[in-house]
Amino acid sequence: MNAAGDRGPQAGPDEAVVDLLGVMACGELLAFERLAHDAALAPTIEDKAELARMAVAEFTHFTTLREHLVKIGADPAAAMAPFVEPLGDFHRRTAASNWLEGLVKAFVGDGLAADFYREISGYLDPATAGLVQEVLADSGHSAFAVEHVRAAIDADPRVAGPLALWGRRLMGEALTQAQRVAGEREALAALIVGGSGPDRPGIDLNEIGAMLGRLTAAHSERMAALGLEA
Amino acid sequence: MNAAGDRGPQAGPDEAVVDLLGVMACGELLAFERLAHDAALAPTIEDKAELARMAVAEFTHFTTLREHLVKIGADPAAAMAPFVEPLGDFHRRTAASNWLEGLVKAFVGDGLAADFYREISGYLDPATAGLVQEVLADSGHSAFAVEHVRAAIDADPRVAGPLALWGRRLMGEALTQAQRVAGEREALAALIVGGSGPDRPGIDLNEIGAMLGRLTAAHSERMAALGLEA
Repeated sequence: MNAAGDRGPQAGPDEAVVDLLGVMACGELLAFERLAHDAALAPTIEDKAELARMAVAEFTHFTTLREHLVKIGADPAAAMAPFVEPLGDFHRRTAASNWLEGLVKAFVGDGLAADFYREISGYLDPATAGLVQEVLADSGHSAFAVEHVRAAIDADPRVAGPLALWGRRLMGEALTQAQRVAGEREALAALIVGGSGPDRPGIDLNEIGAMLGRLTAAHSERMAALGLEA
Repeated sequence: MNAAGDRGPQAGPDEAVVDLLGVMACGELLAFERLAHDAALAPTIEDKAELARMAVAEFTHFTTLREHLVKIGADPAAAMAPFVEPLGDFHRRTAASNWLEGLVKAFVGDGLAADFYREISGYLDPATAGLVQEVLADSGHSAFAVEHVRAAIDADPRVAGPLALWGRRLMGEALTQAQRVAGEREALAALIVGGSGPDRPGIDLNEIGAMLGRLTAAHSERMAALGLEA
């Protein structure tokens, strides 16, 4: 990866863009792993196949991101390295203990990540923005998760309470790890709030707050779609 | 699924073929799950991605088999159902406890399954045989597993002994579960040894023995390729 001091006519890829693609690639690969793992919790072989299909969609995204990193001259492993621990911690701390928790996590986690990347795609060069949009295209998780979680709540309304708590815990852990990443990756943090160099404004706390507000509102809407309180 | 008594002008799909595609589909889906799970044991993020890529190849095979079951008028879930327990037991009893065990299992298990299906593809109608051949095409597991296991033995020859034992255990468990399936699925067992109706010869113990001999010899060759005693 390139430190800011290396930039110039021979400059390598933009550090913040490498960070962004690195965190996304790492996120997709770990989401693959987690979804595939949670497929073991499926009540039927067809449900298992459906969760596996979602996992494969995440892996396809990973491949796309990895290829783009290579194309812009970055080392994919190095680009992903800083995010293995925080994203791994997120998954370890929110390991689903049953099928419904796995579905809620797939839906809520995928939605939150998509919202976040959509928020920052406005700050990207067109090529990177196009790639991010492509990776964010709905991979069909939503309908399956919503349908199954709602059916489970209809069948036994008592599952709703623990799942609502679970959704809050997912959001809390996501924010914890996002703060950790923002603290450790200055270029990425700066990109997120619209500053990536002396010619662009630096961190704007109001903008961070507004973005968090939008992310939280969208999370609440997703929980409502599942029939759960946010 | 169709009992033999249902056959006739309105007959559904051949029971033995449905069993065969069912056990293969179930095997591919569980192999996906296990490889994805073992990706968590990878020492580097790139190795993790490589094992995930193998898992995705297995899922693609599963999709192909599942589509063919639908095409011949079978219910994929019902076709897979009899094999969920025996194949699940195989994986539970041979859960890899480290990265190298996972690689040996991927290589040895995939090779054994491919040999077995290749053995019986000679007894199949051309359409089914073509599908089986397609699914058996090497998905690139071999080179990666061989390279990494040999490198690990070069670096520390002491790992070879436990891995050789592990390979024997994999073969033993595979035979145990195969016997269980053969005992429970008469039509499939009959297909395997060349009998699938009154006009074809029944179970030939000599042929079973010869096939087991060929499978065992191929297993020994694979172990040797890894640098391990069979």
